[in-house]
Amino acid sequence: RPGVWKMLMAAVCVALLSGLQAQDLPGQVSIILLGATGDLARKYLWQGLFHLYLEEVGKGHHFRFHGAALTSTEQGQEVIAKVLESLSCPRDVAPGHCAELKAQFQQLSEYRQLKTPEDYLALSKDIKAQVEHEGLRETGRIFYLSVPPFAYVDIARNINSSCRPGPGAWLRVVLEKPFGHDLHSAQQLAAELGSFFREEEMYRVDHYLGKQVVAQILPFRDQNRAALDGLWNRHHVERVEVVMKETLDVEGRTSFYEEYGVIRDVLQNHLTEVLTLVAMELPVNMSNAEAVLQHKLRAFAALRGLQRHSAVLGQYQAYSGQVRGELQKPDSFHSLTPTFAGILIHIDNLRWESVPFILMSGKVLDERVSYVRILFKNQAFCVQSEKHWVAAQSRCLPRQIIFYIGHGELGSPAVLVSRNLFRPALPSASWKEVEGRPGLRLFGLPLSDYYAYSPVREQDAYSLLISHIFHCRKDSFVTTENLLASWVFWTPLLDSLAHEVPRLYPGGAENGQLLDFGFSGGHLSFSQPQPEQLVPGPDSAPLPSDFQVLRAKYRESPLISAWPEELIARLAGDIEAAAMRAVRRFGEFHLALSGGSSPVALFQQLATGHYSFPWAHTHLWLVDERCVPLWDPESNFQGLQTHLLQHVRVPHYNVHPMPVHRRQRLCAEEDQGTQVYAEEISALSPAGLDGEQLVVLTTSPSSPHRRMSLSLPLINRARKVAVLVMGRMKREIAMLVSRVGHEPKKWPISGVLPDSGQLVWYMDYDAFLG
Amino acid sequence: RPGVWKMLMAAVCVALLSGLQAQDLPGQVSIILLGATGDLARKYLWQGLFHLYLEEVGKGHHFRFHGAALTSTEQGQEVIAKVLESLSCPRDVAPGHCAELKAQFQQLSEYRQLKTPEDYLALSKDIKAQVEHEGLRETGRIFYLSVPPFAYVDIARNINSSCRPGPGAWLRVVLEKPFGHDLHSAQQLAAELGSFFREEEMYRVDHYLGKQVVAQILPFRDQNRAALDGLWNRHHVERVEVVMKETLDVEGRTSFYEEYGVIRDVLQNHLTEVLTLVAMELPVNMSNAEAVLQHKLRAFAALRGLQRHSAVLGQYQAYSGQVRGELQKPDSFHSLTPTFAGILIHIDNLRWESVPFILMSGKVLDERVSYVRILFKNQAFCVQSEKHWVAAQSRCLPRQIIFYIGHGELGSPAVLVSRNLFRPALPSASWKEVEGRPGLRLFGLPLSDYYAYSPVREQDAYSLLISHIFHCRKDSFVTTENLLASWVFWTPLLDSLAHEVPRLYPGGAENGQLLDFGFSGGHLSFSQPQPEQLVPGPDSAPLPSDFQVLRAKYRESPLISAWPEELIARLAGDIEAAAMRAVRRFGEFHLALSGGSSPVALFQQLATGHYSFPWAHTHLWLVDERCVPLWDPESNFQGLQTHLLQHVRVPHYNVHPMPVHRRQRLCAEEDQGTQVYAEEISALSPAGLDGEQLVVLTTSPSSPHRRMSLSLPLINRARKVAVLVMGRMKREIAMLVSRVGHEPKKWPISGVLPDSGQLVWYMDYDAFLG
Repeated sequence: RPGVWKMLMAAVCVALLSGLQAQDLPGQVSIILLGATGDLARKYLWQGLFHLYLEEVGKGHHFRFHGAALTSTEQGQEVIAKVLESLSCPRDVAPGHCAELKAQFQQLSEYRQLKTPEDYLALSKDIKAQVEHEGLRETGRIFYLSVPPFAYVDIARNINSSCRPGPGAWLRVVLEKPFGHDLHSAQQLAAELGSFFREEEMYRVDHYLGKQVVAQILPFRDQNRAALDGLWNRHHVERVEVVMKETLDVEGRTSFYEEYGVIRDVLQNHLTEVLTLVAMELPVNMSNAEAVLQHKLRAFAALRGLQRHSAVLGQYQAYSGQVRGELQKPDSFHSLTPTFAGILIHIDNLRWESVPFILMSGKVLDERVSYVRILFKNQAFCVQSEKHWVAAQSRCLPRQIIFYIGHGELGSPAVLVSRNLFRPALPSASWKEVEGRPGLRLFGLPLSDYYAYSPVREQDAYSLLISHIFHCRKDSFVTTENLLASWVFWTPLLDSLAHEVPRLYPGGAENGQLLDFGFSGGHLSFSQPQPEQLVPGPDSAPLPSDFQVLRAKYRESPLISAWPEELIARLAGDIEAAAMRAVRRFGEFHLALSGGSSPVALFQQLATGHYSFPWAHTHLWLVDERCVPLWDPESNFQGLQTHLLQHVRVPHYNVHPMPVHRRQRLCAEEDQGTQVYAEEISALSPAGLDGEQLVVLTTSPSSPHRRMSLSLPLINRARKVAVLVMGRMKREIAMLVSRVGHEPKKWPISGVLPDSGQLVWYMDYDAFLG
Repeated sequence: RPGVWKMLMAAVCVALLSGLQAQDLPGQVSIILLGATGDLARKYLWQGLFHLYLEEVGKGHHFRFHGAALTSTEQGQEVIAKVLESLSCPRDVAPGHCAELKAQFQQLSEYRQLKTPEDYLALSKDIKAQVEHEGLRETGRIFYLSVPPFAYVDIARNINSSCRPGPGAWLRVVLEKPFGHDLHSAQQLAAELGSFFREEEMYRVDHYLGKQVVAQILPFRDQNRAALDGLWNRHHVERVEVVMKETLDVEGRTSFYEEYGVIRDVLQNHLTEVLTLVAMELPVNMSNAEAVLQHKLRAFAALRGLQRHSAVLGQYQAYSGQVRGELQKPDSFHSLTPTFAGILIHIDNLRWESVPFILMSGKVLDERVSYVRILFKNQAFCVQSEKHWVAAQSRCLPRQIIFYIGHGELGSPAVLVSRNLFRPALPSASWKEVEGRPGLRLFGLPLSDYYAYSPVREQDAYSLLISHIFHCRKDSFVTTENLLASWVFWTPLLDSLAHEVPRLYPGGAENGQLLDFGFSGGHLSFSQPQPEQLVPGPDSAPLPSDFQVLRAKYRESPLISAWPEELIARLAGDIEAAAMRAVRRFGEFHLALSGGSSPVALFQQLATGHYSFPWAHTHLWLVDERCVPLWDPESNFQGLQTHLLQHVRVPHYNVHPMPVHRRQRLCAEEDQGTQVYAEEISALSPAGLDGEQLVVLTTSPSSPHRRMSLSLPLINRARKVAVLVMGRMKREIAMLVSRVGHEPKKWPISGVLPDSGQLVWYMDYDAFLG
């Protein structure tokens, strides 16, 4: 289907751009602005339409503009008349000419109430009649839906059933966010809209994509390929920051905000879109919108999943009070909605692996500013004492590219490139050098240390996007696939943060360092501890400091119990100690690991926290494996590879996946996988179990049911056996197993009783303190 | 043997430290300073001996100090008398008491000529007689050899044969650098000395290890383990700089310097020793000198080999003139000896992988200063605008630890820790906080932003080392193993740079940015291009820019020829393009790679330069393999693993080493390795060669002779075959093969003729332009 869409889209655009000459009659475009009396329309959209008219008038198109809303005709007409009166021309249009153009535009614009299916039908008839009357043919219709999301579906149904243009003319429907609240609601909305419109008919607006500097990111990367090719990767980029800081609060908007919060309001859409523009691979041909969109989707696919620790959340102190006031909540009400968030994102591909992408946005901060900052690594050594460094030349001073989206101390959008980096190419017709501003420092450097360019003519985002809608530049909009990919990425984080208590902040410059955060090993945390007023969490479980690591007995073997992080740290430490001892004594260490989700944290701990682990002398085996191909996401080996093997240096020949997949079959008895693995084990680590089966095929109650495992007699020959039990879900079973005797048939775990080695249970408090 | 030494050493030191109480007679220590009238002795060593005397007098030891040299007795006595007169006490000794102690020391010191074996015999007899006469027993003898290296062996022979103390007393021989000129000469010298002394008898001095701040590195790391444990690794350290800048030239010393140059003079010893102190793992017990030395050796073992591109070299402009003047060279003489070097070192272990260690030293620079700087990564995000940052607190300002060895703007040795890092623990008896110095900035921060400590009492390196010799603190000295490990590391670089023309620099502040250098992908280069005066190299081969990549025919197939770097880049690009095409068409790409040294550069290029390579869908095969275990350094697979696999993400099951090692045997026919590999190939990549052998055992003219290879019919089924031929060594064979017909028996390469695929030859100019 994307293929079909692509072709259709291409066809439509060709018709628009070159079709005119081929037709006899001049064409008319009707633009219907729904919500024409609303805030957004009054502030930006009418102006954008006027701007489009100014640009296109005289190029052969005829236009008609229909403002529409639920407002009565009379009232609406009044509002619109005022709005049209206040429209302004760009500075380079002479006032007299401007007045003339404005009058023409007013002439072509009307207001009408649009409520019932009949209203839509009437509109459609009127357009057709008017087109015929003027001896034109209809080129297309643009419906701009500047309405709340709950109204989308009704309007869409009416457009589809009663207001589509005739054959040969196109339809474009423009949608404003929010596009759902999470993946599920976004899918639902997309499915509903998809039942009325084809993908290429829909234009979802993220107005950030219309900001001049944001719209310049890809062209900048394209036009500076020579300089950026070698730099735009993990070897040279130290970090990327995507930031939108606001000073305002949300007073008057809490009913919306309380439901959305900063992540849904700003990060999931605006900042994520910008992130992908920085991170995506550049298609060879930038004018191929479809290729651009496909590359963007690939960037989404490479984003590493976010976890609870990928975020820090804050809320300005006055927020809960505002919510209580506006939404009539009781005094005891405290909102958990974040008004500030910092997020750490990693991208799992060779270009960006290990480069931190930091997204940050918040209300009531110390300044209003938006930017993307790409900071390059300092890979120079400057021999002279720093007092001799020549500012704009020394490669030891910060080197960065900043897409300054707007506001802040500079006060205007700009592209900044450190002078010690390279002189960028920007289209000189639309970008000019920023004038000097002595004393102004940006990101650690005086403005004069940058090549700085700003737009010759500032244009607001909506004007630009309306022009792009008209010119069919689909890559400036959010496709369904793109939208869902973004929700796929954000929804798990939003779910895991649902009950997180945001840190309260006073707001403005008073915040001090309270919101500063740091990252390490993929985890984000505030740099400063929470100040006194500790907000109690929804879960009043005992705090880690209440317990030490607990030692006890479980099933007559030592039990180590702690909170998950300490428990994992302890287990990893114990494994390393065992490895060191084994390598010292025998020259090698054999480690058999289980699969599933519990060991993932262990793998990560071993991968990032144990520098002296003797990996070069360690053989890795699987305790059990699911009968799926090794590349299946369900495969235990796949988890081991992703979370451990990729990060340490185990020689290839020391890694022993279970042969569950031989001769294109899974765990077929006749392929003798169990024997092959048993031989591999015996060859390298003689277990002295002649006659006993070392590896067996088993079935599991949970899917996939068929498994291959090490046999109990083999496991019981180990010097050390650690059993890791984590999470509340395991409480009940841990309780049950504690009372079970030796019943390995029913409870395999009860058969784990090392002959001469040691068994230790590692249980977190959740599993243990039932 | 190291084990035996360890035990002996321990025994000797125990005898020294605790044995006194157990003996009836008080013991005497004789210290013989050879070269007693030389520069070093007059400036530092006598003072060091006096210092030792001050420290130890009254602790039960009796001392005798024998100055010795080739100088006649009378002349020598005169010199020594003057030196002894000029000795000074530490500031905390009252002048009257000092005069008294000095008189005692003078009393115990004598000068004698030491030339012939008889002189040594006489010295030994005199010591014995005097010990007996005074009713003492002999505890030990220290011979401090402050003499040129050519004199070592004679003196060592004389000490060993004629001047060893009697049974029960120890011998210590102190040696001053240089300890050889390269690995070979160092081994020779070590072997000669080893025939006279046991390892634990030798104390090789690197006076840098006696500098207070250098001597503090390990104790600092030990005493601040809690703070450093999480920081001292690749996740947190951005870079380490080990720097010794000098302002002086080498006038008057060119005969020495011309032979050594800056790498042998400073980097191979001083800076390398310091590097290992920073990089090594800390033993659990720091007082175990043997463990310290073993951990240091392990750090050496982890150093990645240096290449020609790991260094930049410079020479101050006046140098060649000074050499011509002092060594009577003709006007045409231009020295290639570097007086400046920057080196990039990587350490291949999990702690330090990818952290750049930069070593830099030079003469006639803009300032005199030595330091080790550990710069930490900025892993914070500061939400407030930078004008609100509170200097010493913001985690967004540089965070670093500097071991300020001496001189520079601070003017004294110090340990500096950024206040936004942690408050370090230093022994308060010997380290005090540095007083404020308004306006002084060090490494980008005002002094007040550091916790800064300097020694309570400055002590020169030799005093400290002489005390350590006496106290048997072997870890402050360079063991034979340590010395050879350092030469093993440096010699290949020195060899490869032997004909490198250093960049000329004017000296002092005038150097500007001329010597600044940068690194990228493991390569080091000057940041600025060579200014006009281009010094012609010894090799006047055509420069790369003289040729474009050359396209031609070779054996009737396309030939691509270029300089090695371009050639490798081209080949890697062609492979990536083929991979992309294959993955697009078939979902997977099969790449069979040859072993040996030529492909190493290709592996590295693929590993570091190709971000979009579809590794996840690539299968890697071997074209040929030596019949050695896969973990043998000779194994082709080992090279592939080291240079490519470790750096990219090929799934484990897509990597196909040749099964040359089955059932503990190498390439045994009956183990059917060729069949196993053939089956593996057929299963994944049906070649359609029923009946033909796909994999064969062969013999090679060069060792190891037995190989396993893909068969010619299989190779000829490939879609693309690239043959890479590089280096002068291949000139002749490339010439020969160009004239050979189809003789695959004699010339296997002549049998490479893809059935329907394409054969391309990639030859560098060295191989091609015979």
